[in-house]
Amino acid sequence: MKKTLLVDMDGVLADVYAQFQACEAQKFGAPKPEAYLMGKWENEAFPLHDEYVNNGTFFIDAPVMPGSPAVLEELNRAYDLFIVSAAMQFPTSLTQKQTWLGVHFPFIRWQQIIFCGTKRQIQGDVMIDDHFSNLDIFTGEGILFTQPHNQLKDAGKNKRVHTWTDIAAYLL
Amino acid sequence: MKKTLLVDMDGVLADVYAQFQACEAQKFGAPKPEAYLMGKWENEAFPLHDEYVNNGTFFIDAPVMPGSPAVLEELNRAYDLFIVSAAMQFPTSLTQKQTWLGVHFPFIRWQQIIFCGTKRQIQGDVMIDDHFSNLDIFTGEGILFTQPHNQLKDAGKNKRVHTWTDIAAYLL
Repeated sequence: MKKTLLVDMDGVLADVYAQFQACEAQKFGAPKPEAYLMGKWENEAFPLHDEYVNNGTFFIDAPVMPGSPAVLEELNRAYDLFIVSAAMQFPTSLTQKQTWLGVHFPFIRWQQIIFCGTKRQIQGDVMIDDHFSNLDIFTGEGILFTQPHNQLKDAGKNKRVHTWTDIAAYLL
Repeated sequence: MKKTLLVDMDGVLADVYAQFQACEAQKFGAPKPEAYLMGKWENEAFPLHDEYVNNGTFFIDAPVMPGSPAVLEELNRAYDLFIVSAAMQFPTSLTQKQTWLGVHFPFIRWQQIIFCGTKRQIQGDVMIDDHFSNLDIFTGEGILFTQPHNQLKDAGKNKRVHTWTDIAAYLL
């Protein structure tokens, strides 16, 4: 029986930092220095966070995390795969996110998508996420995807990965 | 510690049969006879099912199941409550459903909402649902909410309830 794998969207499949930086560049003429982002929450690093994510196109235009489509397609064969996104805080993101998945990951069926507020009620064997808040309440195996906000922290009980190549090497 | 209660939307909080019948009346001048609906799947009872649910307003205009707001507000205090809707099959329903919840059940926070394709990965202690397909894969206690499509079937391991008054009597 295949293991159940739960994969996060923002900061794992979707390169939201690249998208925040594009918004910064458009608003202020330049992105934030990379070093400035380290160890800061997204809404701390980008004070206009809420304005950006509610601009109507933030999620549908988000760049794909490099290497993720090919690896996720393989994982989709090897695991019982679900995309799990804590999307409810931003109501306008729901349709954008579903459309975005269809464009970049067309092999993901609607049966495999879960949008929630908290991931506390979602069960599975393995979870890939960039937020400790999701991994800490997960009872299965946690894989921490490196992003600027978590970069300075110890991965704790989770396996840390930096790229989708790392994920392929670890899970496939 | 409070028990976790998972509550379905369509056919439990939202009176989708009333909405289907309103669509029928508008399309054909009269609703389907009540007796005709018994024991039929919704898409069997209403051949224009997909046209209706994709009309852009089906979910946001759906009538509230009688008595549900007051009882759900009490349940929200007594239980760790989540609204769980298998909504992914109809992408246009997501935003409508979230808005609808905000209008009729304003005490439900975004943290308590889960939209999914299948409910297989959602865990909890008690689930209220009108579909055996959701209750059969749930490991907690199942409560079957009577709707025309399930009316002729034995409730099996689930407790059958007919109204929100029944739910209040059983859970509060």
